[in-house]
Amino acid sequence: MSCTFCRILDGELPSYRVYEDEHTYAFLDIHPATKGHTLVIPRKHVVLVQDLSSEEMSALFRTVHRLVGPIQEAMDTPASNITINNGRAAGQLVPHVHVHIIPRKSIGRGGFHRIRSLTKTLPQSEFEEIAEKIRGKVSESSDHNHV
Amino acid sequence: MSCTFCRILDGELPSYRVYEDEHTYAFLDIHPATKGHTLVIPRKHVVLVQDLSSEEMSALFRTVHRLVGPIQEAMDTPASNITINNGRAAGQLVPHVHVHIIPRKSIGRGGFHRIRSLTKTLPQSEFEEIAEKIRGKVSESSDHNHV
Repeated sequence: MSCTFCRILDGELPSYRVYEDEHTYAFLDIHPATKGHTLVIPRKHVVLVQDLSSEEMSALFRTVHRLVGPIQEAMDTPASNITINNGRAAGQLVPHVHVHIIPRKSIGRGGFHRIRSLTKTLPQSEFEEIAEKIRGKVSESSDHNHV
Repeated sequence: MSCTFCRILDGELPSYRVYEDEHTYAFLDIHPATKGHTLVIPRKHVVLVQDLSSEEMSALFRTVHRLVGPIQEAMDTPASNITINNGRAAGQLVPHVHVHIIPRKSIGRGGFHRIRSLTKTLPQSEFEEIAEKIRGKVSESSDHNHV
């Protein structure tokens, strides 16, 4: 199995988990554009959005919807970019559908919401701290909303 | 009513319609990043993704799912970027949730899937032609899939 995200789902590769349910899994991007940059993926290996079933698409964006607010709260940002690069020609690097949630304090250096990784990655302890903070906000929000 | 997208929904401002249903409306961006650049919006005026109800979020991405393939086919591109700028600090210019679907033949000038409008806009006749082509592909795909 060569797909990096399938290997993460199988526990073969480590990840900083933020959320999971039956159909989806969310974890920190290890080449973050900003702190808290999260990826949401379907458990099923599908390359392009148009190849997801309606149910799979719906489950994927249910998770995105659930996470956006808590991620912004955890990272204390007023905004975020939510992006799919759907196909290689659109910048998709891993051929398994993934939604980027990128918390934004302001429009980044390099212009209008360009997605560009931080020049340095973060230490493991900081990834762990961020993942924990987001998980905390997700469970607070689930308690409030009973979702 | 000052929201540009609400004025489009009310027919007060013109738009190049691509698709519509009870909960959502899709039309061409008049400052397209690429030809076929489409915006999908909820009919309800909501500023941020986290303020949509689960049902509204689901309806919005049901339409995105329905349109991505047909838009790529109509524009003959292998890929697309699907993006929400969720809040001013993330580059949101109109305060009404909108999903960009940007067909891509290749990663654009100016770097990694930067969203940047074409330097010239398109003539009205070309917008009309593109909208018609996409509508044709959407109805073909609906016929096939009975969605």
